[in-house]
Amino acid sequence: MKPYAEMTKEELLALTEELKKRYREMQNRDLKLNMSRGKPSLDQLDLSMGLMDALTSDTELQDETGTDCRNYGCLEGIPEAKELLGDIMEVPYDHLIIYGNSSLNVMYDTISRSYSHGVMGNTPWCKLDKVKFLCVVPGYDRHFAITEYFGIENVCVPMLEDGPDMDMVEKLVSEDESIKGIWCVPKYSNPTGNSYSDSVVRRFARLKPAAKDFRIYWDNAYTVHHLYDDHQDHLIEILAECKRAGNPDLVYKFASTSKISFPGSGIAALASSLNNLEDIRQQLKVQTIGHDKVNQLRHVRFFGDIHGVVEHMRKHADILRPKFETVEDTLERELGELGIATWTKPKGGYFISFNTMDGCAKKVVSYCARAGVILTPAGATYPGGKDPHDSNIRIAPSFPPLEDLRIATELLCLCVKLVSAKKLLEEMG
Amino acid sequence: MKPYAEMTKEELLALTEELKKRYREMQNRDLKLNMSRGKPSLDQLDLSMGLMDALTSDTELQDETGTDCRNYGCLEGIPEAKELLGDIMEVPYDHLIIYGNSSLNVMYDTISRSYSHGVMGNTPWCKLDKVKFLCVVPGYDRHFAITEYFGIENVCVPMLEDGPDMDMVEKLVSEDESIKGIWCVPKYSNPTGNSYSDSVVRRFARLKPAAKDFRIYWDNAYTVHHLYDDHQDHLIEILAECKRAGNPDLVYKFASTSKISFPGSGIAALASSLNNLEDIRQQLKVQTIGHDKVNQLRHVRFFGDIHGVVEHMRKHADILRPKFETVEDTLERELGELGIATWTKPKGGYFISFNTMDGCAKKVVSYCARAGVILTPAGATYPGGKDPHDSNIRIAPSFPPLEDLRIATELLCLCVKLVSAKKLLEEMG
Repeated sequence: MKPYAEMTKEELLALTEELKKRYREMQNRDLKLNMSRGKPSLDQLDLSMGLMDALTSDTELQDETGTDCRNYGCLEGIPEAKELLGDIMEVPYDHLIIYGNSSLNVMYDTISRSYSHGVMGNTPWCKLDKVKFLCVVPGYDRHFAITEYFGIENVCVPMLEDGPDMDMVEKLVSEDESIKGIWCVPKYSNPTGNSYSDSVVRRFARLKPAAKDFRIYWDNAYTVHHLYDDHQDHLIEILAECKRAGNPDLVYKFASTSKISFPGSGIAALASSLNNLEDIRQQLKVQTIGHDKVNQLRHVRFFGDIHGVVEHMRKHADILRPKFETVEDTLERELGELGIATWTKPKGGYFISFNTMDGCAKKVVSYCARAGVILTPAGATYPGGKDPHDSNIRIAPSFPPLEDLRIATELLCLCVKLVSAKKLLEEMG
Repeated sequence: MKPYAEMTKEELLALTEELKKRYREMQNRDLKLNMSRGKPSLDQLDLSMGLMDALTSDTELQDETGTDCRNYGCLEGIPEAKELLGDIMEVPYDHLIIYGNSSLNVMYDTISRSYSHGVMGNTPWCKLDKVKFLCVVPGYDRHFAITEYFGIENVCVPMLEDGPDMDMVEKLVSEDESIKGIWCVPKYSNPTGNSYSDSVVRRFARLKPAAKDFRIYWDNAYTVHHLYDDHQDHLIEILAECKRAGNPDLVYKFASTSKISFPGSGIAALASSLNNLEDIRQQLKVQTIGHDKVNQLRHVRFFGDIHGVVEHMRKHADILRPKFETVEDTLERELGELGIATWTKPKGGYFISFNTMDGCAKKVVSYCARAGVILTPAGATYPGGKDPHDSNIRIAPSFPPLEDLRIATELLCLCVKLVSAKKLLEEMG
């Protein structure tokens, strides 16, 4: 098959008829498949069922210092959970606070606190006329939704091959005092799957923000979520790099075990400088008496230590890898030479980012839906759901069984071909 | 022993010398006891160890509609948990949202949301010059700390025999638009242990607040926490009463299983009108993907239903009742006829409220501390830690073993006698 752009009008017309026919056939198969959600599959969830046996009625529910995990107290988490999450997040034990089940909720709290009380003595954002946030795009819709909910203006910064456009980040951040933060998924990014290069991390740590209360929101959602054993991304640890650069307070780092153990029943944590943690404690001690220490203990007993987590993630990878490869192989086979789409080939994380020709993504998602395959809504990876190019689609290969995934990807390819061919025909007039 | 007020100076001097001697003897016993914290004892925690066996690796972790509790989703809680908490809170299934482990955190979120986003379209509190909150005193310090943290002025309303001074509440609320809420613990109140009468609940439901966004914060912390089987307080259900009174949106009701199962590892809930819940959902869906459904399922499997909870609370009562009675009997025996103190005799909850003569509470707590018995700091039951009479002390009988509790209460009585006698002597000049 030759690239669509090289086809004559007659060739495209014939192709479109053929694709329409195949699309109708697919519609008749009455599919009900879903590639929209970055959630673990049943097989993956089964990997953590041992969590349910990690504590029994015969277990002494005390942490290593003798604190009864069943009772009130221990606001910042039990020591062994801090050590485990510290190892996952690559930060020292005393630089993190353990929270509840959701790192998203920790990020929400962080924005909410900055809004109502300000960051380290700076003016609360609710008292400012204008607050802006940088959003690396394509990115994670739930990040953008938090800042949007607080009336903060989301400003897009494009994700390049090796991280955000740092020229743009440096310029905006140094010139505009109303920019108070940036949403980042630095490793196996959502949705592109690529990771920030050493150079990008170093430039982040050396930012010179106009706003004293500017913070990098470093969502380390996929820090141990590799697809390969010998082929992994490794990032410079941002907290340490900020400290070396003389900017120790520049970053909040978030993580959770949501995609390690069970989504919604894991433990989350926030890591930062001691100064930032002290600032956060002023809220924390008013907000709660403590998070779920029994669940912290359960996780520690189940995983043992960081090596246990690594071994566990290897099992996740064994389930996820064939799914990513199936999607990638299908895309390559069906679209590889047509010049109508590009996509990423991540070494970890939960997503593949797929780009159609400009102006085609919404139509592709709609065509897929009408043939029974649900994709993440086009535009969802941009603030306000508005992709200026209407080209990005987030593919989430984790949840469907392998065979469903193959069929769904084939349908996606068919729809991309059909929509692209029609688009080219339209352009010919 | 005759009332201290009837003693001559000589009698008081002799008494003081005698009490000092006994106090020094107590100091020599090198006690280390703690009556400060409203936390369950080890015996009580042991009652819920079955929770740890309620789910195992062989359990199907699906809710009754087939939702996999291990995965993302189900933002407002699984149906059977909503039913169980609804039964505990005496509200219909569809009038509540299940949260994480802490009802205090839900209250914090509620204040925080009102501050940043306003209540049902009303002006966010952060945009107002002045916001006030009514605090029933003596009351719960952590309530007062939340409003204080948001710069809200805490205004005291005295707790009477059958609830807050409703004449004062009605007057303040109807006249002052800056009053946006009231902190209440309506049943087995913290710390007085008494409950709001039918008349008080009816008057609450019929409040005519000047502020459209005024809400009653009804912290139902001790709703099933009876000490006796046949001798219980029963309140008119506030949500239903508000609805009958034509004020359906007037109340937020909070509860958790913290003192039913494990503090910090239970489940919390918020109940309110459908209108209020819809308002709250706008925050909730941005804040988190969902709370810990596995723990919700664990609680449902362990307790079964509301009758299971009632049976379970009977076991708690069997442990708590002798402790309350030991404190009350000791107080009665030691102080009953002296006219220097009063205290409450609750039928449930976690506290006994103790009142010294004016100006003595801080000294009593300090004397106790110097003899090895830690009490809740005097004043803690008032906003800002300031008891205008310096008379209220919160006694928490739950945690210490029975024998410790008897000794601690005896020391408390001795310190009350000593401080009171000295005070009376001072007044004689």
